[in-house]
Amino acid sequence: MIPRYSRPEMVAIWSPETRFRIWFEIEAHACDALAELGVIPKEAARTIWEKGGAAKFDVAKIDEIERVTKHDVIAFLTHLAEFVGPDARFIHQGMTSSDVLDTCLAVQLTRASDMLLADIDALLAALKRRAFEHKDTVTIGRSHGIHAEPTTFGVKLAQAYAEFSRCRERLLHAREDIATCAISGAVGTFANIEPYVEEHVAAKLGLKPEPVSTQVIPRDRHAMFFATLGVIASSVERLAIEIRHLQRTEVLEAEEYFSPGQKGSSAMPHKRNPVLTENLTGLARMVRAYAMPAMEDVALWHERDISHSSVERMIGPDATVTLDFALSRLTGVVDKLLVYPENMEKNLNKFRGLVHSQRVLLALTQVGLSREDAYRLVQRNAMKVWEHGADFLEELLADKDVTAALPEADIREKFDLGYHTKHVDTIFKRVFGEA
Amino acid sequence: MIPRYSRPEMVAIWSPETRFRIWFEIEAHACDALAELGVIPKEAARTIWEKGGAAKFDVAKIDEIERVTKHDVIAFLTHLAEFVGPDARFIHQGMTSSDVLDTCLAVQLTRASDMLLADIDALLAALKRRAFEHKDTVTIGRSHGIHAEPTTFGVKLAQAYAEFSRCRERLLHAREDIATCAISGAVGTFANIEPYVEEHVAAKLGLKPEPVSTQVIPRDRHAMFFATLGVIASSVERLAIEIRHLQRTEVLEAEEYFSPGQKGSSAMPHKRNPVLTENLTGLARMVRAYAMPAMEDVALWHERDISHSSVERMIGPDATVTLDFALSRLTGVVDKLLVYPENMEKNLNKFRGLVHSQRVLLALTQVGLSREDAYRLVQRNAMKVWEHGADFLEELLADKDVTAALPEADIREKFDLGYHTKHVDTIFKRVFGEA
Amino acid sequence: MIPRYSRPEMVAIWSPETRFRIWFEIEAHACDALAELGVIPKEAARTIWEKGGAAKFDVAKIDEIERVTKHDVIAFLTHLAEFVGPDARFIHQGMTSSDVLDTCLAVQLTRASDMLLADIDALLAALKRRAFEHKDTVTIGRSHGIHAEPTTFGVKLAQAYAEFSRCRERLLHAREDIATCAISGAVGTFANIEPYVEEHVAAKLGLKPEPVSTQVIPRDRHAMFFATLGVIASSVERLAIEIRHLQRTEVLEAEEYFSPGQKGSSAMPHKRNPVLTENLTGLARMVRAYAMPAMEDVALWHERDISHSSVERMIGPDATVTLDFALSRLTGVVDKLLVYPENMEKNLNKFRGLVHSQRVLLALTQVGLSREDAYRLVQRNAMKVWEHGADFLEELLADKDVTAALPEADIREKFDLGYHTKHVDTIFKRVFGEA
Amino acid sequence: MIPRYSRPEMVAIWSPETRFRIWFEIEAHACDALAELGVIPKEAARTIWEKGGAAKFDVAKIDEIERVTKHDVIAFLTHLAEFVGPDARFIHQGMTSSDVLDTCLAVQLTRASDMLLADIDALLAALKRRAFEHKDTVTIGRSHGIHAEPTTFGVKLAQAYAEFSRCRERLLHAREDIATCAISGAVGTFANIEPYVEEHVAAKLGLKPEPVSTQVIPRDRHAMFFATLGVIASSVERLAIEIRHLQRTEVLEAEEYFSPGQKGSSAMPHKRNPVLTENLTGLARMVRAYAMPAMEDVALWHERDISHSSVERMIGPDATVTLDFALSRLTGVVDKLLVYPENMEKNLNKFRGLVHSQRVLLALTQVGLSREDAYRLVQRNAMKVWEHGADFLEELLADKDVTAALPEADIREKFDLGYHTKHVDTIFKRVFGEA
Repeated sequence: MIPRYSRPEMVAIWSPETRFRIWFEIEAHACDALAELGVIPKEAARTIWEKGGAAKFDVAKIDEIERVTKHDVIAFLTHLAEFVGPDARFIHQGMTSSDVLDTCLAVQLTRASDMLLADIDALLAALKRRAFEHKDTVTIGRSHGIHAEPTTFGVKLAQAYAEFSRCRERLLHAREDIATCAISGAVGTFANIEPYVEEHVAAKLGLKPEPVSTQVIPRDRHAMFFATLGVIASSVERLAIEIRHLQRTEVLEAEEYFSPGQKGSSAMPHKRNPVLTENLTGLARMVRAYAMPAMEDVALWHERDISHSSVERMIGPDATVTLDFALSRLTGVVDKLLVYPENMEKNLNKFRGLVHSQRVLLALTQVGLSREDAYRLVQRNAMKVWEHGADFLEELLADKDVTAALPEADIREKFDLGYHTKHVDTIFKRVFGEA
Repeated sequence: MIPRYSRPEMVAIWSPETRFRIWFEIEAHACDALAELGVIPKEAARTIWEKGGAAKFDVAKIDEIERVTKHDVIAFLTHLAEFVGPDARFIHQGMTSSDVLDTCLAVQLTRASDMLLADIDALLAALKRRAFEHKDTVTIGRSHGIHAEPTTFGVKLAQAYAEFSRCRERLLHAREDIATCAISGAVGTFANIEPYVEEHVAAKLGLKPEPVSTQVIPRDRHAMFFATLGVIASSVERLAIEIRHLQRTEVLEAEEYFSPGQKGSSAMPHKRNPVLTENLTGLARMVRAYAMPAMEDVALWHERDISHSSVERMIGPDATVTLDFALSRLTGVVDKLLVYPENMEKNLNKFRGLVHSQRVLLALTQVGLSREDAYRLVQRNAMKVWEHGADFLEELLADKDVTAALPEADIREKFDLGYHTKHVDTIFKRVFGEA
Repeated sequence: MIPRYSRPEMVAIWSPETRFRIWFEIEAHACDALAELGVIPKEAARTIWEKGGAAKFDVAKIDEIERVTKHDVIAFLTHLAEFVGPDARFIHQGMTSSDVLDTCLAVQLTRASDMLLADIDALLAALKRRAFEHKDTVTIGRSHGIHAEPTTFGVKLAQAYAEFSRCRERLLHAREDIATCAISGAVGTFANIEPYVEEHVAAKLGLKPEPVSTQVIPRDRHAMFFATLGVIASSVERLAIEIRHLQRTEVLEAEEYFSPGQKGSSAMPHKRNPVLTENLTGLARMVRAYAMPAMEDVALWHERDISHSSVERMIGPDATVTLDFALSRLTGVVDKLLVYPENMEKNLNKFRGLVHSQRVLLALTQVGLSREDAYRLVQRNAMKVWEHGADFLEELLADKDVTAALPEADIREKFDLGYHTKHVDTIFKRVFGEA
Repeated sequence: MIPRYSRPEMVAIWSPETRFRIWFEIEAHACDALAELGVIPKEAARTIWEKGGAAKFDVAKIDEIERVTKHDVIAFLTHLAEFVGPDARFIHQGMTSSDVLDTCLAVQLTRASDMLLADIDALLAALKRRAFEHKDTVTIGRSHGIHAEPTTFGVKLAQAYAEFSRCRERLLHAREDIATCAISGAVGTFANIEPYVEEHVAAKLGLKPEPVSTQVIPRDRHAMFFATLGVIASSVERLAIEIRHLQRTEVLEAEEYFSPGQKGSSAMPHKRNPVLTENLTGLARMVRAYAMPAMEDVALWHERDISHSSVERMIGPDATVTLDFALSRLTGVVDKLLVYPENMEKNLNKFRGLVHSQRVLLALTQVGLSREDAYRLVQRNAMKVWEHGADFLEELLADKDVTAALPEADIREKFDLGYHTKHVDTIFKRVFGEA
């Protein structure tokens, strides 16, 4: 996470101020429950909310205390006590630091998830709008980078829409996975704190109680979360690479919006480069990389070790901020993408009719040729187009073996573009529920 | 995947024989649908099922044809035609190789998922049995590898049970993600094949139609699948490492079953090593590693490129076979694990009462000491135990500041082990729905 | 590693037969040294070489013994004893299994390194030949996929040559890193075996003695080895992707050789797909992935644990066999690559003179315009070419501000292609030492 | 990279101020060479050094310009021109942005390498000091976490010393790999700039000219660099995990230094946790993870794309700062490590003589028993120690089969600890060149 690739809302989730505020709320909610249970005075719980709630925590001062205690939660509690006064001794009763830290992380990750879900929603909206705009914009489909058969630009975007819809679903699962609360005390036995406290705090924070924590919330949850972000980032990369391909000089079927004043190159003034999508390719590599340490974090020793902590202090912000930025940037790219249907048409016709080869092949088998014979007939004419720039239809009509099998009108009929797009509506209905 | 770490049932899913059989079924189901639509004769579809269904495909022969055509599906179809006869020309009408390959992979991965789900179920059963067996076996909980407070061995296993229950849930999601069928022809436009064919084949194979394929089923599905296996492997690693820790000489609270005749070391006859769980640690690293190339596969070029294919030919079997083996091995380890409650008790008492320090701390704050004062009082006595092997209770009773604050009976009461295990039933109810 | 992507020579390194032969040699060399030291009878050492050397080890039988002992080296020694007779008791004196296993792995990895070095040499030879063949074949250089300025196809290949020369150097370092021998006994203290034995065996096997082994050879060596293979694989991927780009329909500046009989698509007979380089892209992802578990293997517990073993049983063959195959395949692709200089020229001229924009920019600053003014002048003409297909030279000559600054002859002179290739010889001399 | 795990010197390398200063120097050195060649006036080069050298670049202002131009180098040059005046038009002649960016990155990475080398040197010094201090401190060697045979604590540290010596060597190679300079203009052809300029700038900055750049310095160099950091981090992890093991309650052979005032747990005042080495375990995971995107960066499209840029903006600082911090923290841990030889002795004797089992085994084979018979004899006595806490020597002396084979004195002699440490000097001489 670096400012260049960050948006302030997501960054804010990870600020010390936010963290301390969440810590406070966890402690204060726990006090409410403890007061209900009669463990601490009700009055104390009220005081804690009032005085702590009004407090403006001094990050630098907490850091200073931590330099002595080498313990962040103790440093925070010491600072909090300055605001709350003598009732501060009722705070954190029976709790352990991880109760605060892990529940806080759950709150941060659910908030981050909600932002990422909103990001995906915005991307989906942009994709849908552009997909319908170009539902019938015919373009060549390519397999292996080689012209295959016609499709439409709308179908390309519909595929992206379907893919990000799946990403949304996965993110919902991932969010659910990390949305748990642990207030279970040392090694998670509730020895010094009633399970009711956990239930109360969880409910207040929109989390579920962790069924069995062992001081920490188990890290398979977080591994799944960050792995899911890695998969989403890979989908970002896919669409980014599609656009980079479409913008390359020889293809030029689409272009990132190029703002007035923008300079493509310090040396070459004609350059209009797909720098945003290239950037997204790199960012995707980063988000993906963060999945690995998250998976290695799972195998904590016994009831817990703290090796996960440094990892999460880094990838918590790094992964969510970078993916948030990437999704938002991708939405902007899709939204303003310059699309060139005339170039799509030009490219489609580059190999004079060759894209219709399969239809001819099928027609030949339908009239009784073996698959092998039909294949040979089509291929020998196709190769002339490929190698010498011939016109495929003309070659076929001049090939006696072909015309012996198929009447000219039938051959000509195979060169109709509409044939390829007749099921676009079907596809749109599947993806968008409408066409 | 190597024979040493493989089980035959999972390996069989990936054999050429299984693959060709699935290919045949896809083609034959498609023929049924094409016949229904009147594209090919009903009689032909019947013949294909009969003659192809009875065929014993010759893997070596198909390989030989492929060496010429450099195309695996064409090689198979050529071979299939030898069995089916002239009606073979009706096979694969309007389809593209990926329709066969990707749908086949979906079938293989769903079958693999079902085996892995059964593996997890067996593991869960073993964990549950042992968890209840040791529900009340008190053992020291450890954070940072350092004695913390008591818990029970059953709670440790309950946590593993809860973790693998989550893994099961994730695998179900992952299975659903890859269980789609694509029969959509070149670049996925259904130009040469009706969407009905896809729907028919999907239903027959227990899959859903892929909403929008672009010749290939999109690879974000597979990335999510293999990432999920990586997370499950990490949970395997966690439990394996727990057992390795418990077996180390100084701890010796549990041991892998050591069969008669087994030799621990060529040099040292007394060695009984946790080799199974060490092995699982290594296998987990492998399964985790396979998630990376699966994620890199997502960004195929345009409608498809074939870079994913070599990856999947390797990680398809490698990841599923290795995880299947690992889960099964782990189940065996759990099932036969030798547990030593007397060593657990001995270890628990190693630092003469120190595990009760927090209770004393809390009691001191309850009677009015500030948290800081209470912490100081407890810590100065704790350090004597830690450094000089003193008895914690005796030290506390000899500390006037402590006895001034707490009556002796109250202090003694804090050294009751049952205090720590009183919520074990609560935890078991959360995890197993019973206690 | 799967047969499809394997070459027999590299596979043979990892066969049980090879492994047992190396184990035998390690034991027999050690016996020689022990005999020299008077620890065992010289006659015994001779017998061991004679009878063991002539033995044909029965892999199935060794496996069978291992199923009982659960220890592979003991199983082998038991089997070996059947051939050697009573003198077998002198084998393995003071040694531990890891002495055999780790030294064997070192032998296998150095042999694998030698094959990989030969692979790189073959690739370098092909690259050099084609680079000189196309030293002066002008082609457009592209940054961001966008036409930039002219270069030559030879320079592209020279860059690949330089890159693989670096890979060769790295592989030499990596080979040196893993080429050590440990015969140091349990926990590596030489308590039961003299360091001289290690020195002797090392010298015989072309290895260096491991300065301090702790029963095992430290795994940072292997991590570095597999990480290096990952980097080499990434270079394979780079060249593969370059070729995939060059082959795409709209570019078509080069093509993989397409053999007679080869079929590009079951559906579309005109397809000639870059399937080899797509395949290499996937294989690169795999080799890269193996670096991760190798790095995780470094942190073995105390003097050793065996978690690395399962990883190495898999990635030892997987990484070396796959990279060997990939390098060899890439060499074939380069060797037979079809290059189309006429298409390179056509593409170069696609934007009628625009590639010369920078030269005009520089000329304008040389005659006194500020960089910003010059940039503006050039860009406004460049945009007409880009957007309306104008001819860049004509536009410049029609722009009064331009002609006011530069005489027509000077402007025309900036459109000379030779200007861009004048330092190709310099580059070739740097890379090949000749031009 | 987060402040918590950062040291200011390494962070400073990556500050905008440092970057702009390096950019300036690259440009100014290039101007010197251009002036020598007569391309620009000598006077201009002098002015550029004087005015630019004295300039204090305003990062905020450069950022502001970049927001319009969307190009960082152009933004910088525009800002630089404000200081330099009209002669600014002679700056950057014939160069492209990447010449500046990539050469700057090379300077930053070499500086970072030098700091990391110094870090390793400091670590090596600490390891050597402690290794000699504990050369003869006997401790049990452990394989699989199980007691094996005695070694010394000094040997453990000698192994770490040898490992980090290798890491040093690898880092030197990696440093050499990235220490190249490219001043070759658009697509690297030197069309607009003489190779001499590159040679001059390289020499001034302590770099080598890049033999063939294609606008960018090839990224296999950076991949190798970051992969090497990943391996070094894995070695950090190994030593960290060793210390974590030694500090666990049941072992307690060593402890991280625990400063006065430090608090181990908010709940349990007796806790002294290995938090520094746990932290290092996490940091190692991060540094390792950064190797992956660096490897994916290698395959840039054609002459270059900019996908590597975002990755490097992140992992450049992240990997170097984190590893610098980790090495420094590890040095501190080693330096102040509390070592408990009496606990080492206590642990060693935990299984009453069992560590000497192999010597007895060997003695039995030396007097003529078959390996299998000797193994059985030893194992049956060993198992009594293991399972019932018997004394190994007493059991052996009471076993008639044993005493029939070996006289009592010979058996007793096998229980001498000095036997195991007799080659410690040999090992030290190998590692340190002295003992």
